[in-house]
Amino acid sequence: MKILVVGTLAFDNIETPFGKAERIVGGAANYIALSASYFSNSIDIVSIIGNDFPQDYLNLLAKRGINTSGIEKVANKKSFSWTGKYHLDMNTRDTLATDLNVLEDFNPQITDKSYAPDILMLGNLTPSVQLSVLKQMNKRPQLVVLDTMNFWMDTQLETLLEVLKGIDVLTINDEEARQLSGEYSLKKASKRILEMGPKYLIIKKGENGALLFHEDKIFFAPALPLEEVFDPTGAGDTFAGGFIGYLAKSKTLSFDNFKTALIHGSVMASFCVEDFGPQRLMKLNKTEINNRLQQFIDIVQFSHS
Amino acid sequence: MKILVVGTLAFDNIETPFGKAERIVGGAANYIALSASYFSNSIDIVSIIGNDFPQDYLNLLAKRGINTSGIEKVANKKSFSWTGKYHLDMNTRDTLATDLNVLEDFNPQITDKSYAPDILMLGNLTPSVQLSVLKQMNKRPQLVVLDTMNFWMDTQLETLLEVLKGIDVLTINDEEARQLSGEYSLKKASKRILEMGPKYLIIKKGENGALLFHEDKIFFAPALPLEEVFDPTGAGDTFAGGFIGYLAKSKTLSFDNFKTALIHGSVMASFCVEDFGPQRLMKLNKTEINNRLQQFIDIVQFSHS
Repeated sequence: MKILVVGTLAFDNIETPFGKAERIVGGAANYIALSASYFSNSIDIVSIIGNDFPQDYLNLLAKRGINTSGIEKVANKKSFSWTGKYHLDMNTRDTLATDLNVLEDFNPQITDKSYAPDILMLGNLTPSVQLSVLKQMNKRPQLVVLDTMNFWMDTQLETLLEVLKGIDVLTINDEEARQLSGEYSLKKASKRILEMGPKYLIIKKGENGALLFHEDKIFFAPALPLEEVFDPTGAGDTFAGGFIGYLAKSKTLSFDNFKTALIHGSVMASFCVEDFGPQRLMKLNKTEINNRLQQFIDIVQFSHS
Repeated sequence: MKILVVGTLAFDNIETPFGKAERIVGGAANYIALSASYFSNSIDIVSIIGNDFPQDYLNLLAKRGINTSGIEKVANKKSFSWTGKYHLDMNTRDTLATDLNVLEDFNPQITDKSYAPDILMLGNLTPSVQLSVLKQMNKRPQLVVLDTMNFWMDTQLETLLEVLKGIDVLTINDEEARQLSGEYSLKKASKRILEMGPKYLIIKKGENGALLFHEDKIFFAPALPLEEVFDPTGAGDTFAGGFIGYLAKSKTLSFDNFKTALIHGSVMASFCVEDFGPQRLMKLNKTEINNRLQQFIDIVQFSHS
């Protein structure tokens, strides 16, 4: 299955209790595509960068089989940049600076007819941009996955609600699910949100795993207890990338296969947090991924008669 | 397997976002024994009550096959009482009042030779009382499970550390594991704590499930997403009761069986929180328990090749 990822490429300045790192190459599309590339070799990125974005990095993505030709380069502007500081619990963070730069002009035109994705992944972006991309699809993709955040619920709720009507899977965190639904109980929240359009809802809970809701069914993917969560930046996007990558590889869009895909998302996210930025995601191999998958199987499997 | 539960019987005054309830019969021994009684019919309680404790309630426990003859009645004092208020997240609470009353004099003498438990459950109590009970065992029980809390880490750490050397399973919550070990990562914390004596560590994370650590093995039991968590009081004790009850019934003290026991603990805890106090635990039947168990299986089971 062909994957199209629409999302940001960015520079991240990150401070965690373990240290500081500046101008790490980040962005939703970056983490999503890298993570998915371990399962699929048909991934297109549509994104935007400034004149300061390293060509070497784009070459690295291309080496992993990712098509970067849909990344627009703006000559006289800088790339999108995010600066944040994590608290000790690593589940919460403060945004210290958001420099939109090229992102202010991001108005992707999916003109190339070769973009006929089976899976469209709309990374966290202005809902109006997400809606525009969705409307440009000549043929409705088999699966549309959307990530968003509380900021858009505060500032563009109406447009966000319109996008939600056209998608299949929504990924948000627990606080965002509560905000969007007005319900504290995640089970009640999921019912409300599934009435807004998405057929599937994934609620990400960081070190407390992730929940998948569909009709009246629930599945839970744990997070692996790690010695150290080094840097959570990009973990949610890496999770989404593993999820869609596995679906693209296995080509079955059933609830049962979504469960296994969710575990693969968790596997990839567990690597992401082990180092600053996407470094860990650059150098994985199949054995490492399979061993980690086995740990996820072991941690929840039990005998019952 | 014979179970001996040493712990409190109490009156709880509880305020949650859903309402208030006063003089609910609570206490660790109460929840533990009730929960275990769905799996075992050989449960002895050693506890202490005042002149205000309802005989009717003791009769209810006895009807569930629990031996209440080891509950000391103090004629001129009142029962232990706890007053607390839960925050909206239901994972955190403020203790508004702790009236020790009869608990000030609790110095249980396990004189009756008929107490020869295979499983000794030491509910949350002063560590010196827990230590005294442990030393009074003529024959070392096959399994000693201990619950404690941050208050005893603050005030009786030395005695607590001495008790820990003599037990098999410690149950605490995530914050307590961090406090006891001085490590933020729960995986690192578990290593430190397993060096203190216990062979097994159970870290309870409320609505985020529970982790079991043993040697270098980890198991995770999820919590079931519920429409409403009505009152979390006693959920941890109910969890411990289901855990030891299942072990007593299945008579196998292996890591693999501990995993299944942990799930049974989670099953019982998921009922406990559905109503004020132990009301839900009074009127369960096997079909309800089996159906809930199936939900726990469904929520984590996935296909993998």
